Amino acid sequence: MLVNGKNHHTIWVHPDNKGIIQVIDQRKIPFEFEVIDLKSPEDTFEAIKNMTVRGAPLIGITGAYGVYLGLATDQSAKWKTNLIHTANYLKSARPTAVNLALIIDELIGILGICETRKEACELAFETSNLMKLREIEWSEAIGNFGCGLIEEISIRKKGEPVNILTHCNAGWLACIDWGTATAPMYKAFHKGIPIHIWVDETRPRNQGARLTAWELAQEGVLHTVIPDNTGGHLMQHGLVDLCIVGSDRTTLSGDVANKIGTYLNPSCILNFVSY
Amino acid sequence: MLVNGKNHHTIWVHPDNKGIIQVIDQRKIPFEFEVIDLKSPEDTFEAIKNMTVRGAPLIGITGAYGVYLGLATDQSAKWKTNLIHTANYLKSARPTAVNLALIIDELIGILGICETRKEACELAFETSNLMKLREIEWSEAIGNFGCGLIEEISIRKKGEPVNILTHCNAGWLACIDWGTATAPMYKAFHKGIPIHIWVDETRPRNQGARLTAWELAQEGVLHTVIPDNTGGHLMQHGLVDLCIVGSDRTTLSGDVANKIGTYLNPSCILNFVSY
Repeated sequence: MLVNGKNHHTIWVHPDNKGIIQVIDQRKIPFEFEVIDLKSPEDTFEAIKNMTVRGAPLIGITGAYGVYLGLATDQSAKWKTNLIHTANYLKSARPTAVNLALIIDELIGILGICETRKEACELAFETSNLMKLREIEWSEAIGNFGCGLIEEISIRKKGEPVNILTHCNAGWLACIDWGTATAPMYKAFHKGIPIHIWVDETRPRNQGARLTAWELAQEGVLHTVIPDNTGGHLMQHGLVDLCIVGSDRTTLSGDVANKIGTYLNPSCILNFVSY
Repeated sequence: MLVNGKNHHTIWVHPDNKGIIQVIDQRKIPFEFEVIDLKSPEDTFEAIKNMTVRGAPLIGITGAYGVYLGLATDQSAKWKTNLIHTANYLKSARPTAVNLALIIDELIGILGICETRKEACELAFETSNLMKLREIEWSEAIGNFGCGLIEEISIRKKGEPVNILTHCNAGWLACIDWGTATAPMYKAFHKGIPIHIWVDETRPRNQGARLTAWELAQEGVLHTVIPDNTGGHLMQHGLVDLCIVGSDRTTLSGDVANKIGTYLNPSCILNFVSY
């Protein structure tokens, strides 16, 4: 998605140095756009721990690159033992973000076939890149599916803007690109469907006001930041056509756990899971 | 109610000078406790306009004292004409606070019997004082009624703390003493009934976090400030026994208009009107 008019991902390999992974420092948005270099598992651990990167999908991919950085910087003969230590160490940076453990375990499983550190390092690099691309594809799939629903409403409303409420940031900043909850909005916007987003401020950390509003502004999508207590009133007055929020966990029976406040969006009719 | 261990009202006559009405500067709470002198209708208008005083009941009583201050400082022969001008001027300080116009109109009606300015000034003073006492009585009546309901819950819960959620500040700071929504809490607390208050932060102006939490802390009532988005989750988990909120306006059919966010407290089962 756009930052200052240029397309960006939330994480990428340094264009001139394969040994550096770069991420956006999300703690400084919307006030500053700053890029941070990750050169080791320790850098990666810190970036996850101190919330330089946040959002389950992005945390997962960051963890994968962290495993790669461990292999890239490991000079010892005990690389296989170290690999497992690094994996457990990185997983402990955010024990509640299920994507982190899932992605790292998947990567470690794949690396099981490698016989040399060099081989494992290259495979970790390629696999992390592929996992990143897969994450983008998943977001786009959510976006294309959800866009159809927005389009239906738009047709019913005869082109009047579709009002969509979202809570917290399940946006591209939480993923690699497109986002989860925001992907349908961006797809609809790019398709020329008139939309307007109600952005819950999302207390106490203000991810809506700080991150989602910034994302939407950078992309040029019409939006309004509202206090978290306002959604009910807007719905009561017919000013919300659709709610799209993230899901931290979804049970087989369809129950959803997400950021505090999600439950108060009672007409929540679209719910997307990224993993 | 208590401020630094001493009983306080939100508005009072200066103990040594009948020509000065004193109010708490509510813009500075909880950071500073500062008292402001009102000596004229202009001071009164400003105090209402700039939210030094706020809350419909307190605004009403402040308006009454403003009319009195107008009579006290008027030296002209045209005092009857000036009185009407002052009344309209004060009413315009907060056109949406219905108490202000109601109280001032009531006072002007009472002053109609006066033939001299001195007589009117004295009657305005006495009537303002009485209106203030009446406001306290109304708050206490709400408190005593609501306390009974809290006590019933307490008995059912066999002495486990009764968890009460409130939104914004319908506390004693919004009135003269006791408050409207908070009056039952204070009455229950003074009766030794174990209670715990969930205080909605109340974005965007934070009246819950700034004022209600301060009130409760000064009185020594157990409470927790929560983001506005949290009430639904707490109710879902059985952690809210009762909601008590203010009502800006209540219709004959029982519909209530109050601060944005009140609608999101869906199990709101007690609703008190101060006027």
